Amino acid sequence: MAKSRPSKSARSNAARKPKNSRARVEVSAAAKKPSANGRLKIALLGFGTVGQSVAKILCQDSGSPLVLTHIYNRNVARKKTDSLPKRIRWTERIEDVLESDADVVVELIGGLDPAGDWVRRALRAGKSVVTANKLLISECGPELVDLARSMGRRIEFGASVAGGIPAIIGIQEGLAGDQLYRIAGILNGTCNYILTRMEAIGASFQAALKEAQELGFAEADPSSDVNGIDARAKLVILTQAGLGLRVRAEQILARPITTIASVDFMYARDLDCTIRQISLAEKTVSPEAPHRVRLAGAVQPALIPTDSLMAHAQGSQNIVTTFGEYSGRTVFSGYGAGGDPTAVAVVSDLYAIARSAGAPPGALPKPARVPDEISGDFTVPHYLRFVVKDRPGIVAALATILARYGISIDALLQKPGFPHSALSFVMTLESCDSAELNRAIEEIAQLDFHVEPPLCLPIFSE
Amino acid sequence: MAKSRPSKSARSNAARKPKNSRARVEVSAAAKKPSANGRLKIALLGFGTVGQSVAKILCQDSGSPLVLTHIYNRNVARKKTDSLPKRIRWTERIEDVLESDADVVVELIGGLDPAGDWVRRALRAGKSVVTANKLLISECGPELVDLARSMGRRIEFGASVAGGIPAIIGIQEGLAGDQLYRIAGILNGTCNYILTRMEAIGASFQAALKEAQELGFAEADPSSDVNGIDARAKLVILTQAGLGLRVRAEQILARPITTIASVDFMYARDLDCTIRQISLAEKTVSPEAPHRVRLAGAVQPALIPTDSLMAHAQGSQNIVTTFGEYSGRTVFSGYGAGGDPTAVAVVSDLYAIARSAGAPPGALPKPARVPDEISGDFTVPHYLRFVVKDRPGIVAALATILARYGISIDALLQKPGFPHSALSFVMTLESCDSAELNRAIEEIAQLDFHVEPPLCLPIFSE
Repeated sequence: MAKSRPSKSARSNAARKPKNSRARVEVSAAAKKPSANGRLKIALLGFGTVGQSVAKILCQDSGSPLVLTHIYNRNVARKKTDSLPKRIRWTERIEDVLESDADVVVELIGGLDPAGDWVRRALRAGKSVVTANKLLISECGPELVDLARSMGRRIEFGASVAGGIPAIIGIQEGLAGDQLYRIAGILNGTCNYILTRMEAIGASFQAALKEAQELGFAEADPSSDVNGIDARAKLVILTQAGLGLRVRAEQILARPITTIASVDFMYARDLDCTIRQISLAEKTVSPEAPHRVRLAGAVQPALIPTDSLMAHAQGSQNIVTTFGEYSGRTVFSGYGAGGDPTAVAVVSDLYAIARSAGAPPGALPKPARVPDEISGDFTVPHYLRFVVKDRPGIVAALATILARYGISIDALLQKPGFPHSALSFVMTLESCDSAELNRAIEEIAQLDFHVEPPLCLPIFSE
Repeated sequence: MAKSRPSKSARSNAARKPKNSRARVEVSAAAKKPSANGRLKIALLGFGTVGQSVAKILCQDSGSPLVLTHIYNRNVARKKTDSLPKRIRWTERIEDVLESDADVVVELIGGLDPAGDWVRRALRAGKSVVTANKLLISECGPELVDLARSMGRRIEFGASVAGGIPAIIGIQEGLAGDQLYRIAGILNGTCNYILTRMEAIGASFQAALKEAQELGFAEADPSSDVNGIDARAKLVILTQAGLGLRVRAEQILARPITTIASVDFMYARDLDCTIRQISLAEKTVSPEAPHRVRLAGAVQPALIPTDSLMAHAQGSQNIVTTFGEYSGRTVFSGYGAGGDPTAVAVVSDLYAIARSAGAPPGALPKPARVPDEISGDFTVPHYLRFVVKDRPGIVAALATILARYGISIDALLQKPGFPHSALSFVMTLESCDSAELNRAIEEIAQLDFHVEPPLCLPIFSE
């Protein structure tokens, strides 16, 4: 089909809607009532992998309270498929959706621009919004929730974190009765796939990345995944939802996994550990100043015990772990990405809106506050890996500097077989503050025997 | 304090409420409006471990939309504590609660009677209900949901399954967009504690039970736990919530864990497995008759791989695993029992009611149906353990019978050191239908060399 042609019924629908602004206001008012036949009209923005899965799920259940009425995509003609009902209006003009009688707009475009503008316009037009857009929600979530509320509408974003795993609703509603103080997770399936492959077959980072790209688990440009930017946006959303703390993504430390070599998995194994990209946010209140709230948050590669639940998340799986004053540790895990699992989260959010149809938005969730202090520092044991040009006195030099910072060495590990010109060995350190350790490492990095910069990873137990 | 004395403010509150039926109707009508100051008035029925935790959580947050106003308990005087606000009315007359202006009744009495009657009366009086009562919900859940709906009220029961783990909301709302076909879990903390202790220290069932009782992880009468009755009620609730199938508890197979001996853990270990009480419900539709729905459901001790997520649930922890057409496997785990975790589920349900205050009840969840066929049979590998008076020909006799039923032996395991008079050995069987296997075992049990009845356990992989 060379050109998008809306089906007859969709065209006649469109014909009823003049596009001047007065008409928009009318549409908006109309949208405030539940649809005539009690079904919610759904418009999809974006018909990629997730959008196609959402459409498939929405169209397979004729008894559903949800009906798919609009699909927007750039160059929509090449996306249009005959397998979906003829009533659906396909369009590449965003106005066709924003000025339509759709009750809910599902935003699957991604990115801040133009998605943010379209979401705001949809809310102002009296539509509810469901989005999988972690960047938008991590950046503008509170503002968009306020906007939705002011319009008597809802914005739901369960799909923005951990795909099919109901972590947001589990935390925000299922654990609403608790005070959570820590959230830890594996939130990026690409990194988890790469690291589990490096572990399983001893692959280098580059080889594992290439494999992930060939299998569709990594993008052509994987930088936002491997540098922690993607997971960081999700951690910001979880920090708001679970810890009630409002932070900006750039306030959270993100370290790349690109520095991890296959030798690190060998040493980690000797420590009964493996290496994963761990996202961690921890709220503390000092006993001296109970009104001051500190947040420690970071996305970084870390050692975790091989028998831990986190290490259990294989391949592209995700896991979210919460720690609460009363509930203790609660774990949510499953498929965090992919068209079908993410579509489940989107459709579940649509059901939530359908259940609440006609109802005013509920009470405000616990108000979020800005923490008084934000750092990426945790007081935990650490793993230090050096690649050095071997000569006598190296360990002594390292130990001297560490001792000066009050940091104790726990163990020294050295596998046989490395050349003297690039000898790889590991120190583990007893629990110490990572800020202090970073200062020591800065000094250590100045020493002249390094073949590559020292690698420092925290060791997180459960 | 020898006798319950309502505090002054509670008494003056009570004085405003004449107890004739006309007044009750007025109270009921009043309860339909959100409380004047926007806070929901909460009445607790039952002030045991969970009730005390709920009270503690409700009273520590002065900014909460929830305010605890009534506590009912038998012989309330011995329960009354000065650590809670004076405004709370303590009573041992259930009418004081049912005729009060409380918006929500939290039922923590347990059992069917009188809890069921009180819950119905509370709903009819226009109050919403939150309950942790798995027996009541497994037996009367659909009826109570209908009653609540007819009164424009809600009944929430997140605490009835897996305590602090938000499994019900995760499944019913977070995975609403999927079609789930299997739910598996460890739903009884007492059994899990006993079995993990038998595994860890090689204790006998009786010794592990005694330890569990001393530590408060098992009741003086542990029968409903160890026989699977407790977990079965929870499985019935999960089957309704997740698979949309309505069954009665007595339709679900429950086998005791009392038959497990420490030798079974030794043999299980050789198979890289451990033993847990597993609750499993699986919905299937045969391709020939797509409108016929079969449910296979059982609560029983089973072998599971030691490296499985289920085996990860240690001590009194719980785990719920769902399998969906689109979401794949999703896991919820954490503390399934205990005052504080269960209280988190109760208070989270109260927040859910507070959020929806003033709103009509939402759309019906997917309607549940009665399955066309219910069995406790699964087609999986099995573990058979025999204790026999040794003599030649035993394995041949067993193998002959199994062969007649078309069942293949996978492996034969025999540890050294058993006396000939009570020799313990194990057969593992290739995947076979447990109904067919049960018929073979009935025949095998007639043979004259058994010292104790053969033990048959399914082997569930993940």
